[in-house]
Amino acid sequence: MSEPGRVFSALKAHCRDDWDAFIRHEFVRRLGVGDLPEACFRHYLGQDYIFLTHFARAYALAAFKSDELDDMRGAAATLDALLNSEMALHVKFCAGWGLSEAEMAALPEAEANLAYTRFVLATGMAGDLLDLLVALAPCVLGYAEIGTWLKADPDSDRSQSSPYRDWIEMYAGAEYQEVAQGAIAQLDRVAARRLGPDPTASPRWAKLTETFRSATRLEIGFWDMGLAPPA
Amino acid sequence: MSEPGRVFSALKAHCRDDWDAFIRHEFVRRLGVGDLPEACFRHYLGQDYIFLTHFARAYALAAFKSDELDDMRGAAATLDALLNSEMALHVKFCAGWGLSEAEMAALPEAEANLAYTRFVLATGMAGDLLDLLVALAPCVLGYAEIGTWLKADPDSDRSQSSPYRDWIEMYAGAEYQEVAQGAIAQLDRVAARRLGPDPTASPRWAKLTETFRSATRLEIGFWDMGLAPPA
Amino acid sequence: MSEPGRVFSALKAHCRDDWDAFIRHEFVRRLGVGDLPEACFRHYLGQDYIFLTHFARAYALAAFKSDELDDMRGAAATLDALLNSEMALHVKFCAGWGLSEAEMAALPEAEANLAYTRFVLATGMAGDLLDLLVALAPCVLGYAEIGTWLKADPDSDRSQSSPYRDWIEMYAGAEYQEVAQGAIAQLDRVAARRLGPDPTASPRWAKLTETFRSATRLEIGFWDMGLAPPA
Amino acid sequence: MSEPGRVFSALKAHCRDDWDAFIRHEFVRRLGVGDLPEACFRHYLGQDYIFLTHFARAYALAAFKSDELDDMRGAAATLDALLNSEMALHVKFCAGWGLSEAEMAALPEAEANLAYTRFVLATGMAGDLLDLLVALAPCVLGYAEIGTWLKADPDSDRSQSSPYRDWIEMYAGAEYQEVAQGAIAQLDRVAARRLGPDPTASPRWAKLTETFRSATRLEIGFWDMGLAPPA
Repeated sequence: MSEPGRVFSALKAHCRDDWDAFIRHEFVRRLGVGDLPEACFRHYLGQDYIFLTHFARAYALAAFKSDELDDMRGAAATLDALLNSEMALHVKFCAGWGLSEAEMAALPEAEANLAYTRFVLATGMAGDLLDLLVALAPCVLGYAEIGTWLKADPDSDRSQSSPYRDWIEMYAGAEYQEVAQGAIAQLDRVAARRLGPDPTASPRWAKLTETFRSATRLEIGFWDMGLAPPA
Repeated sequence: MSEPGRVFSALKAHCRDDWDAFIRHEFVRRLGVGDLPEACFRHYLGQDYIFLTHFARAYALAAFKSDELDDMRGAAATLDALLNSEMALHVKFCAGWGLSEAEMAALPEAEANLAYTRFVLATGMAGDLLDLLVALAPCVLGYAEIGTWLKADPDSDRSQSSPYRDWIEMYAGAEYQEVAQGAIAQLDRVAARRLGPDPTASPRWAKLTETFRSATRLEIGFWDMGLAPPA
Repeated sequence: MSEPGRVFSALKAHCRDDWDAFIRHEFVRRLGVGDLPEACFRHYLGQDYIFLTHFARAYALAAFKSDELDDMRGAAATLDALLNSEMALHVKFCAGWGLSEAEMAALPEAEANLAYTRFVLATGMAGDLLDLLVALAPCVLGYAEIGTWLKADPDSDRSQSSPYRDWIEMYAGAEYQEVAQGAIAQLDRVAARRLGPDPTASPRWAKLTETFRSATRLEIGFWDMGLAPPA
Repeated sequence: MSEPGRVFSALKAHCRDDWDAFIRHEFVRRLGVGDLPEACFRHYLGQDYIFLTHFARAYALAAFKSDELDDMRGAAATLDALLNSEMALHVKFCAGWGLSEAEMAALPEAEANLAYTRFVLATGMAGDLLDLLVALAPCVLGYAEIGTWLKADPDSDRSQSSPYRDWIEMYAGAEYQEVAQGAIAQLDRVAARRLGPDPTASPRWAKLTETFRSATRLEIGFWDMGLAPPA
């Protein structure tokens, strides 16, 4: 199990079609070429604000469930980053789109949002740290793949006038990519500690791939929601 | 707070439209008049099997979160009933519809199912026993209202030949109605213990009504799912 | 891993001295020969009542954390047995010793009790079902060994006049021994499902043995407490 | 409920004798006058390292259980401070006492430590955020009172040569006192949000005072442990 990222690769290999449907979703493609309706993007941004609070709670749960100081520190750092800098960035970003924090905090939570976040939390609570990290992985790692792909894709609108340029730059940027590399390495490390040198040979592997697939499908549901803003 | 069922009544009063949309849902009405497509009912039954396992886990959580022996005993009795008799009844009922337990256990979980059950579990974990009981209430108490209404409704097909007669009899029956009365009384009791003599005056009341409304909407989502069986 | 009870045997082998100090504790030996002061036994009985309520909550947590229906059913059955029959037996037994349920429910919880029960609950919440079952094992399985040993020990006072004869018969009896056999089999089964065919080769094994050792030492602390009744 | 610190004052008033036994414990008094045996202090420091990791996990749980962003942010900031700066300070402080981090991480956990930390975690998990904050309060707020008292006490050895001067300065210092003021204010705020304007009138108040008393007694047990280093 020395190849870095082997756990993430193995999880993706089990749900390749779902993974591609998430990464290459119509919402993402239209965001890339720049013709995503602004109402869709604004709807997504507002729900993403709610999503971030529950995602932060999931990292708090990861800190609680960690046996090892390095895992606890990693989870606490992510939690702190989410609450005390990423949310501020998000709020600032949304302000540029005419969405105030008060407005976002008052939004009703979309069912796709609720489904995804509570699935992650309940999976983490019922299982162990590894179950939780696998449920968190599609979001953290998928956005890194999406950012990289959109930035490199010749179809993307990389002009200054693209309304979604900053969003793409954020996820394609070095800072976010580093977060994703850390999450990939943590998956390898925690899987090795809990399942041994070959995680895919563990009796738990089938259930972990199911968790990853479910979370990936819930990401698809989140994009679907973005395409269907309330009237 | 001496009027029995006052907490349940107050919760419903806050989301009357959603509550009615759940109780009088097209799935329910068509089940009553007997023209619900069998594929819809069978889809619902299979998902309900998965639902019951997570619902049982929610009652286990309620037992864990109880301070008082009577609440713990009540939750344990419900858990035992769900796992060791209701699921057997459900399996037997489904066998009559040509669905084997092995088939149901192998079904993919619908998103509406996942959303609802994980919302209940995550609400219960993050909050206290009362938060959990309020999240559980729409299911337990809604089915009792549905059973009573369908049995009394002149539009219902109460003939021996109605395919859904047994289902209606089960939820309209004395045994299920007694379970529901117990849940209504427990809501009053736990709310009094945690919020005082006038629960609606508590600063927690607004959030509890939101939890009840969300769970009610997730019930609507469950019926919507029933109407859309996989091809 | 086909030898029944291999996980329990391997756990004991890691803390043989602690295990023996628990099973052959002065409290147990004096209970066997019949010269344990009655104040000690009564103190133990009162604390054991409190212990049983938290132990029941731990089985509720086990049901919540189960992936498989058979584990959930087993935990729910134990929970139901604890709350709805064992506690009644305990109350009846204690009444014979002049301890009413109201008195026991009003007792302050001894620190040894609090330490043990909260360790089990916190271990179960932070970890997975296997962590929880291993934390529960010394109590369930130790009492079965104690009962068997005391009943067979030639030093034991097995006369009708022994004040502790009923206690010994209870834990040596077929019903309790069957519960213990079930718990031993469940440990093998859950360990196989979560760690694979050779649980002792898992990277988690060291931590599991530490959990088992800690719980065993907390049992010793519980007997120590029994020997030191409040003045 | 406008008087700041009213909840903390009311909790202390319910267990004044236990609170004084904690604050004015022989360990603390001897630390103040400077004649605490160094073996006791070193034993305490090593166990305190283990304590901090579980205390950090309790703040992670508090972040998970928060409904409001400000509570979540407060808990996350404390968690981050504990893991990423206080533990480093503690490690540096202990190095001055000849204790390396590797040594401390390898120490067996004392029962008094395990009892206290698992009580806090299990109380928080079974209850809500307020239950958890009340269980955490004696530690956070007691150390602030101890620091202030020892610094002001004319019996204290405030000379440069006192071995415990730095410890006293740390807890008497402005930075720690500010943390304590924040915790006091959070208790008022969360109690108001969950119990209403007069928390002492809530039906939950009796149980909250019991939690506070238990945690205070577990602090006493922690000092007792400090006075009894392993041979």
